[in-house]
Amino acid sequence: MSGTILIVDDLATNRIVLKVKLATTPYRVVQAGTAREALRLAMDDAPDLILANARLGGQSAEPFLRALRRIEPLAHVPIILIQSEDDATERLTLLLAGADEVLGRPVSERLLLARLRNLLRQRNAEEELIGQISGTPGFAEAQAPLALPGKVTLYGSDRAAARALRAQLGEGTPHRLSCLVLDDGPPPASQDIFVIHLALAQAEEGLRLLADLKAATDTRHSPVLVLLEADAAPLAVTLLDMGADDVLFAPVAREELGQRLARHLARKRRNEALRAHLRSGLEAALRDPLTGAYNRRYALPWLERQIARLALGRKSLAVMVADLDFFKQVNDRHGHAAGDAVLVAVTERLRAHLRAGDLLARIGGEEFLIALPDTTRLEAQEVAERLCHAVRATPVTVPGARAPIPVTLSLGVTVAAPRPGLAPPTTQGLLEEADHALFAAKARGRNQARFCTRSAA
Amino acid sequence: MSGTILIVDDLATNRIVLKVKLATTPYRVVQAGTAREALRLAMDDAPDLILANARLGGQSAEPFLRALRRIEPLAHVPIILIQSEDDATERLTLLLAGADEVLGRPVSERLLLARLRNLLRQRNAEEELIGQISGTPGFAEAQAPLALPGKVTLYGSDRAAARALRAQLGEGTPHRLSCLVLDDGPPPASQDIFVIHLALAQAEEGLRLLADLKAATDTRHSPVLVLLEADAAPLAVTLLDMGADDVLFAPVAREELGQRLARHLARKRRNEALRAHLRSGLEAALRDPLTGAYNRRYALPWLERQIARLALGRKSLAVMVADLDFFKQVNDRHGHAAGDAVLVAVTERLRAHLRAGDLLARIGGEEFLIALPDTTRLEAQEVAERLCHAVRATPVTVPGARAPIPVTLSLGVTVAAPRPGLAPPTTQGLLEEADHALFAAKARGRNQARFCTRSAA
Repeated sequence: MSGTILIVDDLATNRIVLKVKLATTPYRVVQAGTAREALRLAMDDAPDLILANARLGGQSAEPFLRALRRIEPLAHVPIILIQSEDDATERLTLLLAGADEVLGRPVSERLLLARLRNLLRQRNAEEELIGQISGTPGFAEAQAPLALPGKVTLYGSDRAAARALRAQLGEGTPHRLSCLVLDDGPPPASQDIFVIHLALAQAEEGLRLLADLKAATDTRHSPVLVLLEADAAPLAVTLLDMGADDVLFAPVAREELGQRLARHLARKRRNEALRAHLRSGLEAALRDPLTGAYNRRYALPWLERQIARLALGRKSLAVMVADLDFFKQVNDRHGHAAGDAVLVAVTERLRAHLRAGDLLARIGGEEFLIALPDTTRLEAQEVAERLCHAVRATPVTVPGARAPIPVTLSLGVTVAAPRPGLAPPTTQGLLEEADHALFAAKARGRNQARFCTRSAA
Repeated sequence: MSGTILIVDDLATNRIVLKVKLATTPYRVVQAGTAREALRLAMDDAPDLILANARLGGQSAEPFLRALRRIEPLAHVPIILIQSEDDATERLTLLLAGADEVLGRPVSERLLLARLRNLLRQRNAEEELIGQISGTPGFAEAQAPLALPGKVTLYGSDRAAARALRAQLGEGTPHRLSCLVLDDGPPPASQDIFVIHLALAQAEEGLRLLADLKAATDTRHSPVLVLLEADAAPLAVTLLDMGADDVLFAPVAREELGQRLARHLARKRRNEALRAHLRSGLEAALRDPLTGAYNRRYALPWLERQIARLALGRKSLAVMVADLDFFKQVNDRHGHAAGDAVLVAVTERLRAHLRAGDLLARIGGEEFLIALPDTTRLEAQEVAERLCHAVRATPVTVPGARAPIPVTLSLGVTVAAPRPGLAPPTTQGLLEEADHALFAAKARGRNQARFCTRSAA
């Protein structure tokens, strides 16, 4: 399925004309004769794009737009409105109500189709992001757009044109503006959005600037708006198909330019929030939710990578298995909540004595895996003793418990030597060595670290 | 930072000429005079693109390419090679060794820069995918490209041209080929890759087809290769900036066309594997790794959404908290591994008696949360009794244990009635009701389901 386009118009003839224009596209077309019917259809099966008359049932389509934008699954569906004649005031009203584009009749078929492709591309990219994270908690919050001011770079054909563009955005703009000319090359760092003012004489420079902005790592997610002088109007289709986020035709009213900037800025912020949410969701897959330590799913592949590096002849790798002594008694005497609080406190103490590149993972109820790359036997012994001391030194204060709870830690340690050119030890083998040492620590009275007698550094 | 381009050439003058061509781009340029120096630089700090002479140190750059592709972080860095003169045999050798493009001198600056932007765009999109999932387990496997045959659609200006293109790919091609003409409109479903053969007379149709393929939901991740007749060569820059994945100039050798198809197919498959891995990583964040049931992180927001729907006047919602009786004894008598096996078996039995739209989550050691939307009190009672029976009926067979282990389940149930127009109950309140009922089930001898006496359906 290539997507559905919903056409909304009172007049069947208008709907048919639009349907014919779309006949060669890969999209399925559905039709509605009233705003009410359109809302019903769209709620049952959200279309990928809506193409509606700017006037429905003898009145402005504004209430229809506002109703659509309030329905969560339709809040970001692209909407193009078609005016019977060019009316800048009505266009602004419709843009403010949530339209993505407002075109005047007669509608150029090439331009309409290019707009359609362009909006569907934007929509597809966003849907892919949303599809990846939907169902994950906190998703709704990630969608909230932020209406903060942005950093805007204005490109003119010369300094005067750039300054004219700045003047047009007006004194009252909340954004931070930089002015550049087309030949200036790369923009300042971390800009949110770009506006390029283009006349036919600079067509080549303008197209190339757009392509550069869309290719460069730090600008590829920044919307680019192109404001075309009348002579450059034929470039609109190419610009839209190259990925310009919006194409405007001069002269454009100050409020319209401001509104289009604000809309694309909100879209950019929403997508940034979605990407950040995606990263944090993936990060959560690798951590124990109670203590925030890494889980087994992360720890074992990490350990395997470190062990593989032993063949490259780095310094030795220390592997420790740690277990809280008599932890079941904590749960039995003080309850599960107190047991959880102890685990959180112990994790914090262990983490405080490890380096950024070390591994701390919770691999069982009260069991931790600790691994220290580039660490000698002597260094490992110091760290192991520090960890035992950190847990033993101060009883853990637990909300609701009468007195702080004393806890101790037993640790089994093994150290794998670098083996340049030789096959590295197995993960399983190292874990067994550390487990064996842990058993010895428990047998000798707990509350101590023991080394595996088989290891050597 | 906008990315780094590594230039590799024996001759300083050649490097300077290239550096001047890149002066107006936003990229940082580093240089190497030998393959050895280039490998060292690239290993220390992987460049975003490599631009190298096709001959280095008096011999072919082929060994240099093969060495680069063997180094994991450089395996997919885009590489453009520059030949001193057009040599189709050498070009094929270099493409087979892993080059992304081979250009002959004199190099058109516009074409070179368009290629560069195009490859950097592809690379950035891939890096974003990889950046999202790096560090997650199984990542290395996800990268393995599959050399399976693909579904290829060939577009010609007319039937004869499309058939000629098919003939050119040859009898021996492993791919499944479909032939279409430019005016045919949308392609058959689920094609892997497209080849468009274009002469100047069909420029507009060709550009539009490319734009349509890149916009449509089901083809936007399918590579598009464009084979240009000599008169259409000036379209190359526009095609590359519109997102064509490769642009070739006719005549092209059968082996070269086959190799370029294979490379883009492998890239598509790699990206599909990355996207699938991303989805599974996110899915894992929401599940208990032992039993595969959902975790608390997923369950609580899910329950909140269902509760919110009670205000819309749907049928009632049943919420159950289930706890295995005397589970600690299982762990103590049979060990943790046996306890884990029991939890897995119980989860499977519970799941078998729930509908696809019900919730099953493990929210504590031996505690489960079960919720059934659109379920009356009577239906909930039947399900609760079925669940208790399913656990009780057959002792759990555990590998290593002398005899199957008998287990029973206690269940607390509450049912929230639909409350059209009224504020829904709180999640916390419902969980407390179910907990209270669970406590009653435990007090009355366990191995049974009890309803919260406060609830009503």
